[in-house]
Amino acid sequence: MRMIMAIWFLFLCLPIFSSLSSAASSAKFTPRFPSSIVKKPEQLSVSTKTKPYQTRYFTQILDHFTYTPNSYQKFQQKYLINDTFWGGSRNNAPIFVYTGNEGDIEWFAQNTGFMFDNAPYFKALLVFIEHRFYGESMPFGGNKDIAYSNSSTLGYLTSTQALADFAGLIINLKKNLSALHSPVVVFGGSYGGMLAAWFRLKYPHVAIGALASSAPILQFQGMVSPYSFNNIITQDYRSESENCYKVIKGSWDLIEKTAERQGGLELLRKSFRICKNQISADGIENWLGTALIYTAMTDYPTPSNFLNPLPAYPVKQMCKAIDDPKTGNNTFEKLHGVANVYYNYSGKATCFDLASHSDSLGLAGWTWQVP
Amino acid sequence: MRMIMAIWFLFLCLPIFSSLSSAASSAKFTPRFPSSIVKKPEQLSVSTKTKPYQTRYFTQILDHFTYTPNSYQKFQQKYLINDTFWGGSRNNAPIFVYTGNEGDIEWFAQNTGFMFDNAPYFKALLVFIEHRFYGESMPFGGNKDIAYSNSSTLGYLTSTQALADFAGLIINLKKNLSALHSPVVVFGGSYGGMLAAWFRLKYPHVAIGALASSAPILQFQGMVSPYSFNNIITQDYRSESENCYKVIKGSWDLIEKTAERQGGLELLRKSFRICKNQISADGIENWLGTALIYTAMTDYPTPSNFLNPLPAYPVKQMCKAIDDPKTGNNTFEKLHGVANVYYNYSGKATCFDLASHSDSLGLAGWTWQVP
Repeated sequence: MRMIMAIWFLFLCLPIFSSLSSAASSAKFTPRFPSSIVKKPEQLSVSTKTKPYQTRYFTQILDHFTYTPNSYQKFQQKYLINDTFWGGSRNNAPIFVYTGNEGDIEWFAQNTGFMFDNAPYFKALLVFIEHRFYGESMPFGGNKDIAYSNSSTLGYLTSTQALADFAGLIINLKKNLSALHSPVVVFGGSYGGMLAAWFRLKYPHVAIGALASSAPILQFQGMVSPYSFNNIITQDYRSESENCYKVIKGSWDLIEKTAERQGGLELLRKSFRICKNQISADGIENWLGTALIYTAMTDYPTPSNFLNPLPAYPVKQMCKAIDDPKTGNNTFEKLHGVANVYYNYSGKATCFDLASHSDSLGLAGWTWQVP
Repeated sequence: MRMIMAIWFLFLCLPIFSSLSSAASSAKFTPRFPSSIVKKPEQLSVSTKTKPYQTRYFTQILDHFTYTPNSYQKFQQKYLINDTFWGGSRNNAPIFVYTGNEGDIEWFAQNTGFMFDNAPYFKALLVFIEHRFYGESMPFGGNKDIAYSNSSTLGYLTSTQALADFAGLIINLKKNLSALHSPVVVFGGSYGGMLAAWFRLKYPHVAIGALASSAPILQFQGMVSPYSFNNIITQDYRSESENCYKVIKGSWDLIEKTAERQGGLELLRKSFRICKNQISADGIENWLGTALIYTAMTDYPTPSNFLNPLPAYPVKQMCKAIDDPKTGNNTFEKLHGVANVYYNYSGKATCFDLASHSDSLGLAGWTWQVP
C-alpha cells in the first residue's frame, strides 16, 4: 500500500531546515534527484516474468493545442494494463488509471500497490500511463538526446499536454475495449497526484473521480508558506528526539566551518567515508540533505525500495544513529551513521561516491518542468 | 437586444435546403462570408464620437500550452471597456465579458445591445475582448499577411488558445481594477457563445456564469443531425407560405438547367441584374443561398444592420416578393426580388457584383478554424 511521496518538492522548495539554519548556507543547497530515480526498466526490481501487467503503446500527438507543422508529429506513449481483476465492459466494471509522473511508468506501477490492493473489490481494470518525455514515452522519434536538446523540443513537455495525452489515450482505450460506460477513476501520487486532480477538473467527462496522494495541489508561490514542506521534514526528525533535530540543525554550520580550515576537507572526507572524487562543503551538504529529505519522504513502516533501499521506519533509524551514546560528541560520526542508513542499507559500500548522484537525463526533464 | 446568430454554421453544415434539393446541386453549394463581415472599424456604423466604450490593449502571449521558443512571442489583444454602469470594485459589482468571436470586436460590441440593456440593472462593468487573429488582435507583429501566411503561424489560431487569452486578460484586468471579488459573467453569440460556455467549463474559477446565445454547443459530427441547421432555415421560409418554400426549393434545378442551355447564362444575368463579371450556376446559387441563409439568421423584428442592411422581418419580405402575384410564374423575377431584399435594401444598386462576395483575409481566419 505504498504511494509515492512529494519528490517534486525538492526542486520547488527551499532546502531542508532552511527556515532554521542560516540563509547563507541554505542558499547553496541544491537538492537533486537520486540516481535510483532514473533507473532503466531492466534495473527495476520486478523481473519480466512476474510483472503484473502487459506493456502497450499508444500513438500520441505531440501538440494538442496548436496546429503548427510540428504539432502533428507522433510518438509512442507507453502504458501498462492489468485485467486480472476486471469485471469486464458488459458489467460496466470500472477502470483505475494511474496518471504517470516524472519517471519510468514501471517504477510507479511497482510502487502503487494501493491500486492492486483495491482492484479486486471494485473489479477494476488497471492502467498505468507513462508521462511524455519520461521512460520510453519519448517524442522526436524516441530519441532522448533530441527530445531533451533544447526548448524547441522540450517546449512540448508540459503538464497541460500530459493531461491531454491521458484524455486521448483513455477515450481511445475505452472505445477499443467497448467499455464506453465503464467509469474511470484516476490515481496519482506527488506530481502524479496533481495530474490526477487536475485531470478530474479539466476532463470531468472522462474521469468520475480522482485520488491524489501526497499531491501538493496548493503548493504554489503566494498560496502557502514556502517553508511548509521543510517544516514537515524538520518535524519528522524532531518528533523522534530533540537531540536528533539539534544535531542536524547544527551540522551545516559545522561542515562549512570545518571545510574552511586547513585540512578540513580531508577530515570531512575521512569522517564521511567519501571516495576519492571532488569534495566541497556544498557537495556534502547536498548529499546529506538528500538523504534526510528522501528518507523522511519514504518513512514507511516496512523495509522498502522506492527511492533507495531502506529499513522500516528509516527516520527512527537515522535518529538512533545520532542519539547513539557510542558516538559521544562526534557529530561527523553521527552524520556518517545518517548517511549510512540511506546510502548503504546493504552494508556493502566501502566509500560514498558523491558524483554518482549528479544530474542525468531523467533529471533534466524534471528540471525543465519545475520553475 | 440583438445577439449575433450562428454565422459559423455556414462552413460546417450542408447548404440550405440540401436535404430537400438534389444532392448534385447541393454539393456544389459553398456558402461564403458576406463582405460586410470583414468591414474595417472605420466602416462600422457607429462613429468614434459616440462609441459607448474605450479601446484598450493587453499584451498577450502567443502560446499558452507549450514552451517552445515561438511560444513566448507577444501580441497586442484589443478589448473594449465601458464603466458607465459599473457599481465599482468596492461593491463587488459584476463584470460582464463578451468573449469575442470571428471578427472585429467593435462589430460584436455594437450588435450586442443585450449587455448594454442589462448592465444598469446589475451595475455591471462591460468588457468586450477581441479574438486572436481577428480585427486588430493580430499576432506576429500585428502583420496580418505574416499571421495568415501558413500553418506555422495560423497554428496558433485555436479556440483553446483564445479561451486562455480571455482567462489571462480577465484575471489581469481584475487585479488592475482591484476588483478581485467582482463576479465575472461571460456572454457570447454563435461561436462566441460556444466560447462563453466552454470558458465557464474550463475556467470555472474565473467566470461564475455564461450566457451562450445561438451557440451550437452540440453541433458536432455524430452528435446531432447534419441537417438540423438547414431544416430550421427551411422552416423559417415554409412558415411564411408553402409557395415560398416550393419556389425556393425548385429554383436550384431551374437555375442549373437554364445555365446548361445556349444563352442560358445571359438569361440568368439579365434576370438577376448581375454585373458584367464572371457568371456560373454555382456562383448564382451561392449568391442566392447566402442571401436566404443570412436573412433567416438575422430575421429581426426591426430594421437592422448586422450582416447587411435589412428591413424588419426580412424573411417575410422575401416571401412577399416570391408570393407577389405581379411576378406571375416568373421564378427568376421572384428570386431577383429575394436578392433585392438582402443585397439592395438601400435600393441604390443598379447591378449585383457576385465577385464582391469572394474570399478575404477575414474569411481566411474562419476557414482555418472550421474543419
